[in-house]
Amino acid sequence: MTVLKTAVASFSVLLAACAGHDKAASQAPAVPSLEDVRAVSPALARNTESLLLGEVWKRPGLSPRDRSLVTVAVLIARNQTVEMAYHFNLALDNGVTPAELSETINHLAFYSGWGSATGTILIAKDVFARRHIGAEQLAPVSPSLLPIDQASEQVRTAYVDRVVGPVSPGLVHYTSAALFHDLWLRPGLAPRDRSLITVSALIATGQVAQLGAHLNRAMDNGLTQAQASEMLTQLAFYAGWPNVFTAVPVVSDVFAARQKAASNTLQ
Amino acid sequence: MTVLKTAVASFSVLLAACAGHDKAASQAPAVPSLEDVRAVSPALARNTESLLLGEVWKRPGLSPRDRSLVTVAVLIARNQTVEMAYHFNLALDNGVTPAELSETINHLAFYSGWGSATGTILIAKDVFARRHIGAEQLAPVSPSLLPIDQASEQVRTAYVDRVVGPVSPGLVHYTSAALFHDLWLRPGLAPRDRSLITVSALIATGQVAQLGAHLNRAMDNGLTQAQASEMLTQLAFYAGWPNVFTAVPVVSDVFAARQKAASNTLQ
Amino acid sequence: MTVLKTAVASFSVLLAACAGHDKAASQAPAVPSLEDVRAVSPALARNTESLLLGEVWKRPGLSPRDRSLVTVAVLIARNQTVEMAYHFNLALDNGVTPAELSETINHLAFYSGWGSATGTILIAKDVFARRHIGAEQLAPVSPSLLPIDQASEQVRTAYVDRVVGPVSPGLVHYTSAALFHDLWLRPGLAPRDRSLITVSALIATGQVAQLGAHLNRAMDNGLTQAQASEMLTQLAFYAGWPNVFTAVPVVSDVFAARQKAASNTLQ
Repeated sequence: MTVLKTAVASFSVLLAACAGHDKAASQAPAVPSLEDVRAVSPALARNTESLLLGEVWKRPGLSPRDRSLVTVAVLIARNQTVEMAYHFNLALDNGVTPAELSETINHLAFYSGWGSATGTILIAKDVFARRHIGAEQLAPVSPSLLPIDQASEQVRTAYVDRVVGPVSPGLVHYTSAALFHDLWLRPGLAPRDRSLITVSALIATGQVAQLGAHLNRAMDNGLTQAQASEMLTQLAFYAGWPNVFTAVPVVSDVFAARQKAASNTLQ
Repeated sequence: MTVLKTAVASFSVLLAACAGHDKAASQAPAVPSLEDVRAVSPALARNTESLLLGEVWKRPGLSPRDRSLVTVAVLIARNQTVEMAYHFNLALDNGVTPAELSETINHLAFYSGWGSATGTILIAKDVFARRHIGAEQLAPVSPSLLPIDQASEQVRTAYVDRVVGPVSPGLVHYTSAALFHDLWLRPGLAPRDRSLITVSALIATGQVAQLGAHLNRAMDNGLTQAQASEMLTQLAFYAGWPNVFTAVPVVSDVFAARQKAASNTLQ
Repeated sequence: MTVLKTAVASFSVLLAACAGHDKAASQAPAVPSLEDVRAVSPALARNTESLLLGEVWKRPGLSPRDRSLVTVAVLIARNQTVEMAYHFNLALDNGVTPAELSETINHLAFYSGWGSATGTILIAKDVFARRHIGAEQLAPVSPSLLPIDQASEQVRTAYVDRVVGPVSPGLVHYTSAALFHDLWLRPGLAPRDRSLITVSALIATGQVAQLGAHLNRAMDNGLTQAQASEMLTQLAFYAGWPNVFTAVPVVSDVFAARQKAASNTLQ
């Protein structure tokens, strides 16, 4: 019986050891706690807790829901998987619906690349499962699409036909078929929110060349100048200061051009 | 015996639990299935299955093998590890040889940075092991090198000596010693394929400043304009639309300059 | 007893299987060995061993400690987690103190984005634990700050007020409050070293728009031209050749302007 007792005792140790892998069983990367951060950089833990979560996230000018959309877009665009589970949960707590989060991932597949979207799947699946979010709460595959804005679509296709047409007919085709005649018209995420995550993803990856057009579209879609301004503050922390400083001249030009156009219209 | 029976019963549970970690034992990140994608975004699953794999990958103009080289280059350049096992396997299925995949990783160590190459190792090792690909199928360490093109090399060194020489002699040295007098001459991957993955990696990371020179080299090395055009379609999905739109003006200029030069030559 | 013997025998197998997950228990990604690299690309293993570790790291012009700061900054800025444990350990071996490594992570939270810093935590925590580095060796939360350089701070605030002020008051506020009146004055990492990692992170992510200002600050903070020159050689391998070639014209302009200013001062 001594051998058996030892065997059973070893069992407990073994079970405990294997239980320690339950986290890994979710196939999502481990999320560091604030205590983990403190063990590496007490200042970073303080900055995370007091400055970022305790102050920046609570500033007026941009709702916690919008801050979550901005932050989630940065993490997806840059494949920063470690913070994803935390921020997917925070987004859902802040009023982003499961359908909107689902559609955010689908949207950024096209705007950040397929691998950025695929990199979120096992993490988002785990978050959804723990919150008992089922298929019926997700954005459907083929919903009725929003009506297209014919005027702005004419301007867009004329530009793309002229600039991209001679270079890549395939790119012209899918820009219409997959993006502007489908993705942007899906009702699961409002055009204004699609613009917000697109602009955030562009700034997070330093893609200023496409920023002006998308910020204009964002403001056409309802993003206010005050919100865009505060979006930059949020992005400074999540995309890093230099990416936001690089974006500032473009944002400044868009603001100025729209103010000038508005004052001309008012006269 | 009751205790023993319980012990043995627990064994089975335990074995099953530990067996669940076999995947983790490969040290490669878990690859989400299409069902996993569907649990997060049914639309993304549909887009992956019907639009991307079912349609884009089957377009004429660029072979499945070339599409695999383009896609693998994007994943490596951007450290998108989650899709790597899938696309390394697909590349091998599409006719990329183990030696070519091995050499692609070696090439991108220099063009995307060492960490991008190192990030592929445990995944590629696992893919090779499962397919019983041994050392004899890999690109050798020191093969006979391809002959160097003295004329284009003279132009290159004159430029680098003039522009980089006063700034960083070390950079000048290794650009010749490690890159153009070694890496590009290794026969394990054809110059045209090295150019294809280099251009893809540049576009995937928004590095347009180096794109013109490398696209010209790619076309000198045999990449046709039709292939380059369709490469942009493939890249739109894997590198994201904005990166490709940012590349379009550079690609357009290269196409135009080469057409003009060709028509001048013909006269 | 036969059943029991079998049970105990299975135990050993099981223990071995679970022991194989001890690495995973550290929650840090597995680090490939040189043998792993060789199993994928013998040439990359040779290049890593002989060319990079055996030659480049030993070049004069930049100390191993500075090379470690440069390399760690690249890995953090680009979320290249696989090489992190190796290079955090190498940095500590090369004379970077735990407090400096801790503060490097805190610094890059602001300059590369929060997710880049958070992505290091479980890895750095594990490295610190294995080396028995406790809280008393880390940079403290609220140290006495270094004195601020009023003259250069006046130039900076005038510029930021003028350019960023009309666009994002929140960004102006935190650029002073969090960065230049706090982070840069923390004594845990010398201003010259903060500049070195900032410049390295900028080049590693292609952010040339902010490079000129930060390289000038780096050289004001004591980075010599010879060190900056050799930093580019180190960065070529870790950030990839194209990122460094894109940086060269900016670096060249900074060198030229400072030489001209110096010669004017001498007259």
